[in-house]
Amino acid sequence: MNQYELGKVHSVFALQTRYGPFVILRRLCAMNAIEKMKEQLHRIKPISAAMTQEAENRVNSLIKPKGSLGDLEKLYIQLAGIQNTLYPSVEKKAVIVCAGDHGVIAEGVATSKKDITLIQANNMMRGVTGVCALSRQVGAEVVVVDVGIDAPDEKRHPEMINKNVMKGSNNFYREKAMSYEQAIQSVQAGIDVALQKVSEGVQLLGTGEMGIGNTTPSAAIVSVITGATPEAVTGVGANLPLEKLAHKVTVVKESIAKHAPNPADGFDVLSKVGGLEIGGMAGVMIGGAMAGVPVVVDGFISTAAAVIACTIEPKVRDYLIASHGSMEPGARIGAEHLNFKQYLQLDMRLGEGTGAVLMFNIIDAACHMNRHMLTFEEAGFIVD
Amino acid sequence: MNQYELGKVHSVFALQTRYGPFVILRRLCAMNAIEKMKEQLHRIKPISAAMTQEAENRVNSLIKPKGSLGDLEKLYIQLAGIQNTLYPSVEKKAVIVCAGDHGVIAEGVATSKKDITLIQANNMMRGVTGVCALSRQVGAEVVVVDVGIDAPDEKRHPEMINKNVMKGSNNFYREKAMSYEQAIQSVQAGIDVALQKVSEGVQLLGTGEMGIGNTTPSAAIVSVITGATPEAVTGVGANLPLEKLAHKVTVVKESIAKHAPNPADGFDVLSKVGGLEIGGMAGVMIGGAMAGVPVVVDGFISTAAAVIACTIEPKVRDYLIASHGSMEPGARIGAEHLNFKQYLQLDMRLGEGTGAVLMFNIIDAACHMNRHMLTFEEAGFIVD
Repeated sequence: MNQYELGKVHSVFALQTRYGPFVILRRLCAMNAIEKMKEQLHRIKPISAAMTQEAENRVNSLIKPKGSLGDLEKLYIQLAGIQNTLYPSVEKKAVIVCAGDHGVIAEGVATSKKDITLIQANNMMRGVTGVCALSRQVGAEVVVVDVGIDAPDEKRHPEMINKNVMKGSNNFYREKAMSYEQAIQSVQAGIDVALQKVSEGVQLLGTGEMGIGNTTPSAAIVSVITGATPEAVTGVGANLPLEKLAHKVTVVKESIAKHAPNPADGFDVLSKVGGLEIGGMAGVMIGGAMAGVPVVVDGFISTAAAVIACTIEPKVRDYLIASHGSMEPGARIGAEHLNFKQYLQLDMRLGEGTGAVLMFNIIDAACHMNRHMLTFEEAGFIVD
Repeated sequence: MNQYELGKVHSVFALQTRYGPFVILRRLCAMNAIEKMKEQLHRIKPISAAMTQEAENRVNSLIKPKGSLGDLEKLYIQLAGIQNTLYPSVEKKAVIVCAGDHGVIAEGVATSKKDITLIQANNMMRGVTGVCALSRQVGAEVVVVDVGIDAPDEKRHPEMINKNVMKGSNNFYREKAMSYEQAIQSVQAGIDVALQKVSEGVQLLGTGEMGIGNTTPSAAIVSVITGATPEAVTGVGANLPLEKLAHKVTVVKESIAKHAPNPADGFDVLSKVGGLEIGGMAGVMIGGAMAGVPVVVDGFISTAAAVIACTIEPKVRDYLIASHGSMEPGARIGAEHLNFKQYLQLDMRLGEGTGAVLMFNIIDAACHMNRHMLTFEEAGFIVD
């Protein structure tokens, strides 16, 4: 045992005299989790400015009027910067769907029953939901992660990734959604799965979610961090009757007032008015950034997770690619906060990662543009 | 020779005494072309209302909140109605790129030289332009048709489809772009190629174009038929310097004033201020409608062609699927006229059919949604 370790043990004993062994152990774990998280965040590098410039030069040399492929060109440049190559590739794609339950549904903010979270997560493992169908079209793997489903372990599909932090968040209208430590753990879950997928060769990640009631924490998160009013960010989610919307707004507003989350601390926001799968998705984004892999953000819930991820570490932003404009009003506000452009306007509000996997096609197309168009020089044009 | 044929010959003789043999022959051909066109337009059926209803019922039974896949659901319903099946399929896809030159570039309305039309059409045959690169991504065939390139036949790629009606349109600032007969022929060219592709098994068509200067006739067409002012519909096209925009507007405005095209007659508009490849694309849309195959409309030029096609035969509209929002201001106005939604917002203005082939992915995804999602009943949900 070296000096440093000895010092640690001493301070643990000192703490123990004040708080008793159980509390101490939890604090130590939390300290370790925070330290580990800090070390991971430290590993995120800015994307390559030099490669970004080279890619811009290259795209301007392709046989088309300058800039005429618009956002495909910008996406290509971003991908080149992220992957640090003039020939980025997104052949191997995966959408990571994080699932979790929400205690706040006790307040009547959702129409579906809580059980649907588990049922649909299991259905995703069977390949029969919306995100599965759309992933087939683009050739993406669907990875389902239990970050906080409120169900007995044996009811979970045996091949689902188990990163369950707690059996559903607490009702944040009454108490904090989860502890600070659990917020960190939920983010860590997403990081771990993202890194695992990258180690298997995945070059493009997407985020998706399953969690009955999760538009309520998403609205709260976006409101706290962007400063927009609860009224502006709260919508009907999955077909909540309009007459219940005012109540949902009240729940968001009063929960924020009660807990006063610190908008500069993503973990604090997550623990007070967030959700476990939202933490998981923020982790997927952080993990992608750590590994130098672009992450496509789906709709409202994913955007709320992106707001959390970029609050935790702003460098994550450059690794993110937005996808579609969700019908939820908070999605636009979160997107503006992150300077996201919503490329697809398809009036979708299913979630699951459906918008992200549709966007995979467009990103793939940006790579094809680069690989298969000739330059003016290659085509033998005489450039004036 | 029967009575009818005898009567025809007599009337030809009667005409001949007034106009001389050459004029008569041309009029006869035109009469035949008009008759043939009328017969073809007559073959376009409304899409199946019964199947549309069945498809709507089916999509509402899939495991997702009702309506939550938004436009994917609407696209599926439209495809089901067009293909008259609950399981539409778009496995085999082709984008038909019509190429033609424009006499009006003599007025300084384009920056690129006319030669680029042939060069890029030939490059498309080599598979190295923007539309080729994006078609690879989605697995679509690129079909290039010379409807009116102004170049010697021997300079055209030998495998390009030759439907050349004339060697570039006339400068419509001075005279009609083409004769009424030639306008019909250009549309016929597109119909013929579309039907040929459908006979080869193509289930989804897209339109694209190559024609230096073609944003000018497109602006004129959209202005005449929608009633929008030339100022509102005329943009900088492929990087025209802003200081030349006013002149382009003047060319559009004065050409319309000079020829006074009949906004109710698509062929008249096409012949006076149109372009050959625009007629060809309108023909592709009409051909798709005749054959019961959906046609995806690309950007501004394709939208102008759609405006022509739907003026010629409004039933064509239900077979069309819009794609992206072009940067040209006239694209939005043409789209509104046709009640098109622009699903992709990618700031693209290359043309060639690039937006249409990107949209193929989304349409494909709509088919996958239908084929690979379970219904509530199949998934064993207890529906309340």
